[in-house]
Amino acid sequence: MNFKDTTPEEVNKTMQESHLAFLSYKNFSGKKKAAFLRAIADEIEALGNELVQTAMRETNLPEARIINERGRTTGHCRMFADLVEEGSWVEARIDTALPDRMPAPKPDIRKMLVPIGPVVVFGAANFPLAYSTAGGDTASALAAGCTVVVKAHPAHAATSTLVASAIQKAMEKTGMPKGVFQHVYGAGFQAGQALVKHPLTKAVGFTGSFAGGKALFDLANQRPEPIPVFAEMSSINPVILLPETLAREAEATAGRLAASITLGVGQFCTNPGLIVAIEGEGLELFIRSLSAEIQKVLPGTMLHQGIADNYHAKLKHALAQKGVLMEGQASEEGGEAQGRPLVASAPAEEFIKNPALAEEVFGPFSLIIRCKNNDEFHRVITRLRGQLTTTVIANEEELLKHRNLLNMLTEKAGRLIMNGVPTGVEVCPAMMHGGPFPATTDSRFTAVGTDAIRRFARPVAYQNFTDALLPDELKANNPLGIWRLVNGKWENKID
Amino acid sequence: MNFKDTTPEEVNKTMQESHLAFLSYKNFSGKKKAAFLRAIADEIEALGNELVQTAMRETNLPEARIINERGRTTGHCRMFADLVEEGSWVEARIDTALPDRMPAPKPDIRKMLVPIGPVVVFGAANFPLAYSTAGGDTASALAAGCTVVVKAHPAHAATSTLVASAIQKAMEKTGMPKGVFQHVYGAGFQAGQALVKHPLTKAVGFTGSFAGGKALFDLANQRPEPIPVFAEMSSINPVILLPETLAREAEATAGRLAASITLGVGQFCTNPGLIVAIEGEGLELFIRSLSAEIQKVLPGTMLHQGIADNYHAKLKHALAQKGVLMEGQASEEGGEAQGRPLVASAPAEEFIKNPALAEEVFGPFSLIIRCKNNDEFHRVITRLRGQLTTTVIANEEELLKHRNLLNMLTEKAGRLIMNGVPTGVEVCPAMMHGGPFPATTDSRFTAVGTDAIRRFARPVAYQNFTDALLPDELKANNPLGIWRLVNGKWENKID
Repeated sequence: MNFKDTTPEEVNKTMQESHLAFLSYKNFSGKKKAAFLRAIADEIEALGNELVQTAMRETNLPEARIINERGRTTGHCRMFADLVEEGSWVEARIDTALPDRMPAPKPDIRKMLVPIGPVVVFGAANFPLAYSTAGGDTASALAAGCTVVVKAHPAHAATSTLVASAIQKAMEKTGMPKGVFQHVYGAGFQAGQALVKHPLTKAVGFTGSFAGGKALFDLANQRPEPIPVFAEMSSINPVILLPETLAREAEATAGRLAASITLGVGQFCTNPGLIVAIEGEGLELFIRSLSAEIQKVLPGTMLHQGIADNYHAKLKHALAQKGVLMEGQASEEGGEAQGRPLVASAPAEEFIKNPALAEEVFGPFSLIIRCKNNDEFHRVITRLRGQLTTTVIANEEELLKHRNLLNMLTEKAGRLIMNGVPTGVEVCPAMMHGGPFPATTDSRFTAVGTDAIRRFARPVAYQNFTDALLPDELKANNPLGIWRLVNGKWENKID
Repeated sequence: MNFKDTTPEEVNKTMQESHLAFLSYKNFSGKKKAAFLRAIADEIEALGNELVQTAMRETNLPEARIINERGRTTGHCRMFADLVEEGSWVEARIDTALPDRMPAPKPDIRKMLVPIGPVVVFGAANFPLAYSTAGGDTASALAAGCTVVVKAHPAHAATSTLVASAIQKAMEKTGMPKGVFQHVYGAGFQAGQALVKHPLTKAVGFTGSFAGGKALFDLANQRPEPIPVFAEMSSINPVILLPETLAREAEATAGRLAASITLGVGQFCTNPGLIVAIEGEGLELFIRSLSAEIQKVLPGTMLHQGIADNYHAKLKHALAQKGVLMEGQASEEGGEAQGRPLVASAPAEEFIKNPALAEEVFGPFSLIIRCKNNDEFHRVITRLRGQLTTTVIANEEELLKHRNLLNMLTEKAGRLIMNGVPTGVEVCPAMMHGGPFPATTDSRFTAVGTDAIRRFARPVAYQNFTDALLPDELKANNPLGIWRLVNGKWENKID
């Protein structure tokens, strides 16, 4: 199939339609938006095997993974449906009037979140369903009451088109205005840039490379009216091994990490790309075990040739750095389109001096940093940049002794994991998928879980409005029965 | 007094100290931070008349206003103390593990807000106390657990120094580490730029001109690691008069607006700088009444000569635009340092064509836009840029008929007021003081009220951590008794 790039003129028309649709869609009730989101999930399921086969063909991902990812996609559509149907997400706060207060009367003020406006979403290469056309960005933006324009990722434009057709059907079945969701194409930069620069665009969601995300962030900030860009870009997800646990569980830890490093040919934003430990027998056994595990893993075909080329180039660059030693690689070499799993090591003193060792190598690769002592260990931690996750392999006693380590790691990442692996991002209210720059462009928001809706909303306060003019969320008798902070007390009673 | 500009070398040392202090202060309990914030309020009060006299001398503001502003400042310090002592502001979410879930076990994930890091605050010219050294930015950042560096506003550096000394005393009395709060000077741009560019600075708070705020925003986004800037910059706070109410209450409305336009010599960010109405007898009576009221107001000495010069220049520029007609001004001319109240009018067709008519004239000035009909009226509303507030003067029936007007105004401002004036910003949980660009750089956050704390916090999730390692806010038995979303249900029980 051939998908023609959307022209800047078409982008303009698309954004005009998105804005027009927004002015009515933003006032739709939670119930109505929920019906739409559930219909999207139903229609994606109704695409059946055609969607699975198309996504497999375009991404080289195996059937089980695509089916799993489809479940996650329909799952988050239904999760956001439940969230907006329940309605408390708008964070209603009500302070009632005190007309007799001295020296000045207190007015009645009521506040809630409202949708931010038309949102542009860029499909991600590595999740053809869960972070693409009906991905978390789209679902949370639609849930918030924003209209959405998705730019299909060119590597899986057919998959994207199928999902877009499902959303279109859901719109028709649930009576959504034309323009609530639109789908555009762009193999080059032009369409994407036109979308981000368009004055009617009010926010941007992106998952991909640092270069891509940062370019969109800069473009958005240079607009006459800057807009927020939620770009998830680059993370090496450090795994910190503490000595006692490493000595006791070197082989089991190596087994779990080998699986996490090579899962999905390493094409996850939470892939553990850096392992930090203090030298000793435990670390030597760990490295031998990890290398042995990695040797057994078969090279896998990557998402597309560009990603494979990038992996090979970045890997070569990493291995060429001073002090970097190849520790183990998959026995089978694999082809040009494949990612061959590989682990290497480097002394801490080189990591501390050379920022190239902290660069992301997107694929089944991890670099082990050997620290001579506690001092080097802390200097390595200090030099880490912002991350989506950091993992500590340690027991409780060790971590209680190293309170300062957790204290430092909190500054570095959005999610800390104890004795687990960073891959696998649970979709739930407590999830934080985001982190300090360069992991994302805004550490204050999550891209996964119910709180992802907040990215696409802003508060509006109503002062001294009569009840009939207020949105239901703020009316005196709380007709929706949502949780509200009323004069400083949380309540969810319907009067 | 003479205050020497802080050098870039000193700024570097200041930020190093701020960072060091942050690493311990960020872990302080809500109770401990509350004691500190309350001590700040006490010590500001202990400055007594010296503070009042110094602020009066530096800002030309009258005693009653300074005393009132001091009350607001100590009030918000105590409000944030209560907020963090209670503790629910961290938005704890807990999703407990499901080890037997298929196909994969669900991990235990717990999330809460943590402080973002050292914050730089720029004192505002127009609020020597409430938006300056111990202003809302400082108080909310300290409450969040951030350390703060305040750059004194050069126009009231002595006032700022006094308040800084009060904070210093509060630090000593409540055992705060050195560096939790620091105070620097800069009459030129150098110190401020060095603060914003410093790699250890993690967020910026600013209230002032569009040029100043936008320059800091751009600087922060051009850093290798961009950081959020909360700049409150420019708003003309449109007041929309609907015909029925205008016909009935032209004189009373004019009286209230005259007072709001001239309050504090018009030096409020919520000053009503634009009035929009449809032509008719009501509007003519309103303009006559407003002009008569304005004539009676005495010119007032402005905050400093720079602000007075700026008012005179901007006023001259506005009055020189095509179609602008002076309607009334204070009978007394006033001196060079004073702001002479003035109201003017212009036809809607000129406003629609000429963006200069929508520019803020900071001072006691307002421009009335005469619309020939409903169509022009809507085109004027459509052209409005982002605002802190918009006010509608109308009865319920009129607004129910003009639902689309409210729908449009929600897109334009952070706070909508019905039959009131925009000046007077209540400090309470429901307040939204912020709005779409160019009113502020981030419409998703408020600068006033309890939610202002959110600007300086980011979420962190802990996955599979043992109870002993978790912050109290996330421990199983909820020792702080805060509100938490546990497996989708709101709870505040202590187990």
